[in-house]
Amino acid sequence: MTTQSRGIFIAFEGGDGAGKSTQAARLAGALESLGHTVLRTREPGGTPIGEKLRSLVLDHGHGTIDARTEALMFAASRAAHAHQVIRPALAEGAVVITDRYIDSSVAYQGAGRGLGTDDVRKLNEWATENLEPDLTVLLDVHPEDGRERRTAGDAGEDRLESEPDDFHSRIRDAFLELAAARPEGYLVLPAKDPVEDLAARILERVGQLLQTTVSGGRP
Amino acid sequence: MTTQSRGIFIAFEGGDGAGKSTQAARLAGALESLGHTVLRTREPGGTPIGEKLRSLVLDHGHGTIDARTEALMFAASRAAHAHQVIRPALAEGAVVITDRYIDSSVAYQGAGRGLGTDDVRKLNEWATENLEPDLTVLLDVHPEDGRERRTAGDAGEDRLESEPDDFHSRIRDAFLELAAARPEGYLVLPAKDPVEDLAARILERVGQLLQTTVSGGRP
Repeated sequence: MTTQSRGIFIAFEGGDGAGKSTQAARLAGALESLGHTVLRTREPGGTPIGEKLRSLVLDHGHGTIDARTEALMFAASRAAHAHQVIRPALAEGAVVITDRYIDSSVAYQGAGRGLGTDDVRKLNEWATENLEPDLTVLLDVHPEDGRERRTAGDAGEDRLESEPDDFHSRIRDAFLELAAARPEGYLVLPAKDPVEDLAARILERVGQLLQTTVSGGRP
Repeated sequence: MTTQSRGIFIAFEGGDGAGKSTQAARLAGALESLGHTVLRTREPGGTPIGEKLRSLVLDHGHGTIDARTEALMFAASRAAHAHQVIRPALAEGAVVITDRYIDSSVAYQGAGRGLGTDDVRKLNEWATENLEPDLTVLLDVHPEDGRERRTAGDAGEDRLESEPDDFHSRIRDAFLELAAARPEGYLVLPAKDPVEDLAARILERVGQLLQTTVSGGRP
């Protein structure tokens, strides 16, 4: 749609039940109606091999999965996603919107499972060859609110969702620390705010980003 | 069987078609007949989740698997294997014999796929929390001999076996370099030698290792 040779990459992050999928869908719809080419995707998954890994790592019943194995399976799925889906779409100038990315692994496996946030970040930088989002939208959710929203009328919780609340508290803290360490790359919003308000604020910020990118401000 | 509180860990390495399974089975049988508790295992695999990863990464037909994804899937399978199988068996004093371990990833993904042997080694040290074999038996095979042995009357080659000969040449070189860099940890044998001769030489070296270990020489 413009002369830009590379798209922009937006990640939605936050605890389970934060409303990431809803807001990712709203943003994608709004951008498409403005004429942008949008690729909406998710992790773990996003490729045939990634979806198989997603099922192995999230579904119950595949035997014991220790913390390092879990972290490596997420990184494997992410490597495929970055290499086969995200990079090619960005190269064609699309807006790529992903539901979860590296921060989720840093929070869930690094902080939640106690593997260390630095180690898990390095692992994922290697997996993706340092592909970072232009903007991360963090929907901040209290663990108890998240559980309420997750379990309201759906098919049950997956392997990670069903962890206890203190696990989800460590994850929340880790997400907030990631955002605090590099505020210019994040939009942090309270997940409890009305859906319409959140959607408007996200679109506004993404609009600014598109403006900057189109006018040649991209480093 | 003895006062040793920890077992010994032996890895068989080498290109496809080197005869690793045959020699691993021979060694296991010989040690069992001498009264040792032996655990024979293999990679990728060795655990329920690892076997599922093995099938995803080795079978054809699961879509594109790029080099980093492949390396991370092998590392995930290995993490489960080290954590759930090898460490517990060693803690109980068993002799653990594995068909492939970290060196295979360093050779196949690091050298074969060009990801870099140092990066792949570090990835796998993280995956296993630095669990290293006491002895690596490297069965050195010429790529062309390996292909001949692999394809003689079996069900076909898997995703890695079916790579061209120059891929297998890089792997062979990488294995030999790993052994040359730390000769005290390796027994390198020509895979073409008669099966009986190889079995005798391997058993002799392992016998020395057991002697050292039992007499308290283990660091």
